[in-house]
Amino acid sequence: MTESITSRDNERVKRVCKLRDCAAARQQEQLFFAEGLRLCTDLAAMLMPQEVYFTQKLLDAHPELEQLGGRHFLVSDGVAAKLSDTKAPQGVFCVFPRSVKTVQDIRAGGRYVCMEHVQDPANVGALLRSAAAFGFTGAVLCADCADPFSPKASRASMGALAKVDLIVEKDTAAALRAFSENGIPSFAAALRNSVPLETVDTAGLHGAAVIIGNEGNGLTDETTAVADRAVRIPMAPGVESLNAAVAGSVLLWHFRGV
Amino acid sequence: MTESITSRDNERVKRVCKLRDCAAARQQEQLFFAEGLRLCTDLAAMLMPQEVYFTQKLLDAHPELEQLGGRHFLVSDGVAAKLSDTKAPQGVFCVFPRSVKTVQDIRAGGRYVCMEHVQDPANVGALLRSAAAFGFTGAVLCADCADPFSPKASRASMGALAKVDLIVEKDTAAALRAFSENGIPSFAAALRNSVPLETVDTAGLHGAAVIIGNEGNGLTDETTAVADRAVRIPMAPGVESLNAAVAGSVLLWHFRGV
Repeated sequence: MTESITSRDNERVKRVCKLRDCAAARQQEQLFFAEGLRLCTDLAAMLMPQEVYFTQKLLDAHPELEQLGGRHFLVSDGVAAKLSDTKAPQGVFCVFPRSVKTVQDIRAGGRYVCMEHVQDPANVGALLRSAAAFGFTGAVLCADCADPFSPKASRASMGALAKVDLIVEKDTAAALRAFSENGIPSFAAALRNSVPLETVDTAGLHGAAVIIGNEGNGLTDETTAVADRAVRIPMAPGVESLNAAVAGSVLLWHFRGV
Repeated sequence: MTESITSRDNERVKRVCKLRDCAAARQQEQLFFAEGLRLCTDLAAMLMPQEVYFTQKLLDAHPELEQLGGRHFLVSDGVAAKLSDTKAPQGVFCVFPRSVKTVQDIRAGGRYVCMEHVQDPANVGALLRSAAAFGFTGAVLCADCADPFSPKASRASMGALAKVDLIVEKDTAAALRAFSENGIPSFAAALRNSVPLETVDTAGLHGAAVIIGNEGNGLTDETTAVADRAVRIPMAPGVESLNAAVAGSVLLWHFRGV
């Protein structure tokens, strides 16, 4: 049974826009917003949507949308334009339950990417995508990382936020303690006082935590000091840094098989 | 001698905006636009700026801007807002000469990243940045890649576009021929009919060309067929792809020392 919404002032539409725009609303309702055919169907293969909104035009082109779970709403083009976070909306939007774990869920032998102050949602999303691609167990988001459930981050993650354990822990030190207590060696990405990545032998490692810092400033000294080892990606003279998602992903690639 | 510009309708200001917004203007004038303190000073360490525009406020905070080469213009906040491609302009803008090479400049033993239909300027910029970081000789932009001199690409490259040879060649086949004629083995990034990256032994290689395709569709079949080998980054089941800049950079990392 598909309901119809034609008013941009509909209360349900306003609520979905709030989930799209506001991290606090996402946290309070334990829901998040996703947009686009590929992202919505990828996520719906792993998470049961609570609500699905689509235009008649998109439904005609993709009748399989009827098979998605949750409550369905047919929306006018005007409502679709209001719901959309993009300039050219495809015409499908979902509300999914968000699931976040805690450091108590970190388990021995796991591979984790741990981010501290990674503030660009595109970087958070790309790192989640790389973590999923390289078979990592989970991602731990520390300090003031961008919300992985924002539209920009979920789009960049391409559904990976449902493929790895998402753990939120404001206190980076608590995350590092959890790795240590589970016998997981931690590797801090740091340009100074660090060893070149290719010299780190991964044979014999059982699990690993790769710690990535802020785009501009890197990891805090406290975090680098507490990690088991500090590693760097060697760079040509005169080049000071890589894109944060690129640098983190090269590290994840190195530790993929441990 | 610093000239002053206070009118947003100044002809010079209009011309700079055109260089900012229009690839054809950049090509015709053989110039490009850059914005921001870090990017402008990084580029000015490698390229002589033709023109430098700054606000009094930024000059007061950074008197070293006076040391940059080229003609200098003091601009009002209104002019700075017009020149800026960002929401919060820092207040410095430069016009630099753009330098593009051809496939005739490809040389034996070099390491090249070759892009075909890479259309997101952020990906082009990030790949240039990785290429510079990993000591690559140059980047070859084939087919309809995003213009590396656009503001988005140059920002993402963090000045790397002046650190590697930039070669533009519409015809991917011509680029592959140039690699072949110079004895440079070419490696196409392809998910199918390819070998896992970690099985490619780089010992004994003298130079390499890494060929990266479109974000959504990958390399064309023609290009993959002509390359010497096709390689893939193995991914966990259920994950179909990585961010294009991430995937390309992991490949560049693998071939960094050849």
